[in-house]
Amino acid sequence: MNFKLTLEYDGTDFAGWQVQPGCRTVQGVLEEAILKLTGQSVRVHGSGRTDAGVHAYGQVASVKLSTNIPPERLKFALNPLLPADVKILETQEMHDDFHARFSAQGKTYAYCVLLRNNPAPLLRHRAWQVDSRLDLERVRQVLCLIKGTHDFKAFCSAGSSVSSTERTIWEASMRQTGEECVITLHGNGFLYNMVRIIVGTAVSVGLGQLQLEDVSTALISGKRIIKAPTAPAQGLYLVHVDY
Amino acid sequence: MNFKLTLEYDGTDFAGWQVQPGCRTVQGVLEEAILKLTGQSVRVHGSGRTDAGVHAYGQVASVKLSTNIPPERLKFALNPLLPADVKILETQEMHDDFHARFSAQGKTYAYCVLLRNNPAPLLRHRAWQVDSRLDLERVRQVLCLIKGTHDFKAFCSAGSSVSSTERTIWEASMRQTGEECVITLHGNGFLYNMVRIIVGTAVSVGLGQLQLEDVSTALISGKRIIKAPTAPAQGLYLVHVDY
Repeated sequence: MNFKLTLEYDGTDFAGWQVQPGCRTVQGVLEEAILKLTGQSVRVHGSGRTDAGVHAYGQVASVKLSTNIPPERLKFALNPLLPADVKILETQEMHDDFHARFSAQGKTYAYCVLLRNNPAPLLRHRAWQVDSRLDLERVRQVLCLIKGTHDFKAFCSAGSSVSSTERTIWEASMRQTGEECVITLHGNGFLYNMVRIIVGTAVSVGLGQLQLEDVSTALISGKRIIKAPTAPAQGLYLVHVDY
Repeated sequence: MNFKLTLEYDGTDFAGWQVQPGCRTVQGVLEEAILKLTGQSVRVHGSGRTDAGVHAYGQVASVKLSTNIPPERLKFALNPLLPADVKILETQEMHDDFHARFSAQGKTYAYCVLLRNNPAPLLRHRAWQVDSRLDLERVRQVLCLIKGTHDFKAFCSAGSSVSSTERTIWEASMRQTGEECVITLHGNGFLYNMVRIIVGTAVSVGLGQLQLEDVSTALISGKRIIKAPTAPAQGLYLVHVDY
């Protein structure tokens, strides 16, 4: 049987999604819980890797298992075997071809920027704190440029081995609530570190360290903007995966 | 010189406010930071104790110190000596009579209730998760009863040695955003565990485990409602202290 698992996790104490020897990873603790429950040593496939410190409200994983537990009850059997910082929200049986990564049609990420000059103990693992003078209108202008179908080669970290760097961003928006600014990106796929580079670039433009023209040039030339920072992992949330 | 310190902290990894031998407390780490900076071993007075796991957006402390650091700069000197989960938002010089506890005129607490049946890894240290069928209208009715001047003897834990248990609650309101419900209480003072008992009682009424009449009876009789739970610490935030 092929299962789809929908997961929420607090990425703070994980070395990211992917199993690595000697590291506590989300994939690792999931596979351990499944082994404990079923005695089966299986590979759980995620919709994509998340880096250390990145959170998820709706990461999706797929796994092939033999079990007589009813599919929608599987989460109740697995959750007690999982640590408090990762839990399964939903388990569903899927057709054999379903694969969390290859079947994904789109993803939604949220990034939390905190506009505050004082330190923020309560959000230290949940947001990127930036100078409160950030010009939100300029951040919005960057998001406007990003929206649509582009070659995002300039907005990914080296080392990813994808055949094409063209992606479509259907939604790129921002919502402010007090000191918290949440940037939401919904697209058909994201390159390695793409969300964090887009957010880092947008914040640099909003702080006057980069010009809007630098962004449009990068989109056309495919050349990484040297001064654009990669926003830190702790502000990033994988919200939803479309199938 | 007498200083007022305004503090934010994540209460998760603290054994509460008050210094206790062998425990990591907010008061303890503050006094250590002051000792490191000034060489002075002093007592920092809080506006009140917070229990283990309780958070603060605006706890206030007072401390007498000799220093030639300008008062408003003192936070910049102390913050690097404090751990990441507690920071000073503001330092001000006050007249000699100012005392964080005795000068307080009122306090605002917020309590976060999460209406969700699935587990919630990202809010596990930040909210009290209750059955999503909670009837918010009934919670509001309890808050309505609580508002005003009452003898809150029925709404405090034994062991507090206060002379009077009469308090005035100026505001008792609730605001819902998605699954999160924030109850705000603003009053001239709060007895030991009073906010957590009020919230526990309101939630019990909202879940149909208690009747509204039990609340009005308790307010009149001063007798603790036996079935009313004390809401857990991790949903509670000390937001503001009035002077």
